[in-house]
Amino acid sequence: MKFHELLIGLIVVLLAAKLAGEVMERLGQTAVLGELLAGVLIGPGVFGLVHEGDVLHALAELGVLILLFEVGLESDLTRLLRAGPQAIVVAAVGVVAPFAGGYALMHWLGYPGLVAVFVGATLTATSVGITARVLTDLGRLQDPAATVVLGAAVLDDILGLLTLAVVTGIAATGRVSLGGIGWLALKSATFLVIAVLVALRRAPVLVGLIDRLQARGALVVSSIVFALVAAAAAEWIGLAAIIGAFAAGLILSRTELHTRIEERIKPVADLLVPIFFVTVGMKVELSALNPFAESAQLGVALALTVVAIASKLVAGLAVYHPGTRRWPVGVGMVPRGEVGLIFAGAGLAAAVVAPDLYSALVVVAMITTFVAPAWLKLLYRPAVATAVQ
Amino acid sequence: MKFHELLIGLIVVLLAAKLAGEVMERLGQTAVLGELLAGVLIGPGVFGLVHEGDVLHALAELGVLILLFEVGLESDLTRLLRAGPQAIVVAAVGVVAPFAGGYALMHWLGYPGLVAVFVGATLTATSVGITARVLTDLGRLQDPAATVVLGAAVLDDILGLLTLAVVTGIAATGRVSLGGIGWLALKSATFLVIAVLVALRRAPVLVGLIDRLQARGALVVSSIVFALVAAAAAEWIGLAAIIGAFAAGLILSRTELHTRIEERIKPVADLLVPIFFVTVGMKVELSALNPFAESAQLGVALALTVVAIASKLVAGLAVYHPGTRRWPVGVGMVPRGEVGLIFAGAGLAAAVVAPDLYSALVVVAMITTFVAPAWLKLLYRPAVATAVQ
Repeated sequence: MKFHELLIGLIVVLLAAKLAGEVMERLGQTAVLGELLAGVLIGPGVFGLVHEGDVLHALAELGVLILLFEVGLESDLTRLLRAGPQAIVVAAVGVVAPFAGGYALMHWLGYPGLVAVFVGATLTATSVGITARVLTDLGRLQDPAATVVLGAAVLDDILGLLTLAVVTGIAATGRVSLGGIGWLALKSATFLVIAVLVALRRAPVLVGLIDRLQARGALVVSSIVFALVAAAAAEWIGLAAIIGAFAAGLILSRTELHTRIEERIKPVADLLVPIFFVTVGMKVELSALNPFAESAQLGVALALTVVAIASKLVAGLAVYHPGTRRWPVGVGMVPRGEVGLIFAGAGLAAAVVAPDLYSALVVVAMITTFVAPAWLKLLYRPAVATAVQ
Repeated sequence: MKFHELLIGLIVVLLAAKLAGEVMERLGQTAVLGELLAGVLIGPGVFGLVHEGDVLHALAELGVLILLFEVGLESDLTRLLRAGPQAIVVAAVGVVAPFAGGYALMHWLGYPGLVAVFVGATLTATSVGITARVLTDLGRLQDPAATVVLGAAVLDDILGLLTLAVVTGIAATGRVSLGGIGWLALKSATFLVIAVLVALRRAPVLVGLIDRLQARGALVVSSIVFALVAAAAAEWIGLAAIIGAFAAGLILSRTELHTRIEERIKPVADLLVPIFFVTVGMKVELSALNPFAESAQLGVALALTVVAIASKLVAGLAVYHPGTRRWPVGVGMVPRGEVGLIFAGAGLAAAVVAPDLYSALVVVAMITTFVAPAWLKLLYRPAVATAVQ
């Protein structure tokens, strides 16, 4: 009987994702916006058609892994490394500005210091998945701004995890464990360096191994296994699994096999990636938007949203390369998506963030997530692209 | 942490499947034999590396659905219908002969009537998945014998479910509920007729709908959704989900889109199908083969295995079309696979089959499953193919 439920769930999720994505594309929007909305509609917030069980959750997580793997495959490591310093500056501003803005606002509103720190930390999050997906849908992954925003978003994910480790450490013990944070930072840096070195030096060896397999499906399975291994390694270190999958894609992007791998991965991605975005939409709590609810914090939520958007746009201003547009970089950093929800949830779990403030943070994650795809799409219209840098 | 476990589990399952499949192919065997053996090795029976949790189980079930969908896509409905009467005769003999053989043996050994009935029912099972996969691996799906064996195996699956319904009904209430069985038979027949009619008349309408979708991945997602809907419908009726998936494939096989769909489904199948066969292997209990165990029923097990194999070969003899080879049809019906395990499990759950007899039935399922791929492969060697009809 359980399998029957899964079948129905999958049918509803996939159908809703495709229909809503199709409608959005015909309205000139990106498909991902439709998938997010589909999730809101079929999720517990509105019709409650589908409940995110273990299996759907796992498929969604595999979906976002495959997405980042695909994005890594289509990326150009050399260009990413060349954009490195630029991406580091953007990522740094993209962490400092939202943190400072969130902290200042909460402090000004009279919240205690620890709460202000947690809210600041939540605003630093960037959902690399959403931006990567929008850029893929728009066919703009090769754009200079896309390279910067992708590099910055990945670094931001790592910095965000460090920030989360710091603030949950403070919440639990009242002080910062410099040793633990340093160790996490060191492991993260080592992981990235090893990934880059493997990509630059050892990729052909991998390909040689894969190429010698004869059985049917050897290419798609071995490249996905490679992505899963890198994802598991990243998670084992304490990083997000998607960082590992992205690194795996980057490594294979430098081999002659990469177009053949992309071609085989595509159908798997087509199937699993929408499941991820639908489940992100399913996490939206529309009740958090009700201004008449007793716990309504809509004022705080909107003020935080303004800070959340403005502070990431500031990160875009940190672009100094002449050929790189600032606006797409800033807007590309705006969506908080599921990462923001994870941060807010950690605050709730640590009992630092009260339920009403948690709802406000959910609103921030929602609005930034829904605003970014449409905004990015607009920025890439030809007329807009020449007017707005 | 749970996701981390899933990642490790998937890595082990996929790696083991690919490596063992690769070794078997180089040894001149089919990959599926390697995947089954890989499952035995990594499963609880030997190294216990992987435990079949909910997610892995769901992925495996989706895998076998996709496999049957793929087989349906590559099948030719017209040829299948033309082979229909032939397939019906083979399926009927393939149910009656094993049932009679199993019943007679158990009766002769002095077991009670109900036990003999249950064992006979278990021997009627055919694992259409295993045979379909072997024929796919050998590239023989278009062979006349393959058409017959596929049609017969699908009918056998339906007859098997009817038999199971009868015997579990007897075990529970002591008598046959003719109404319930008749209703199930009627629903099954209606389902097949509707599927064939849709395939013959309405397939172009479906394709027209699918073809109008523009978003990326629309083809793979909509065809998989179609397969899932058919699978859910079949399960809702009381049939196996794989029958629905096979019917969905058959329907789409008659459209111009079918080569494009096949191409897109392949990577998804390459990824999910081996997971199914590995988990089938993981269900093998090697302890059932230990002749020194207190509950050893190896004598009974081997006698039942002989009956199980011989009675399905008899079904092959029922082939009367001049151009169709008898041996591949008979051998193609031999594997009991996961279906046999389900039957034996139902007997255990109904307390009709004692644990030691259950182990003996597991041995029958194992041996028939492992013997068939190698045997089929041998039958399709050019020299053998001309000598053995």
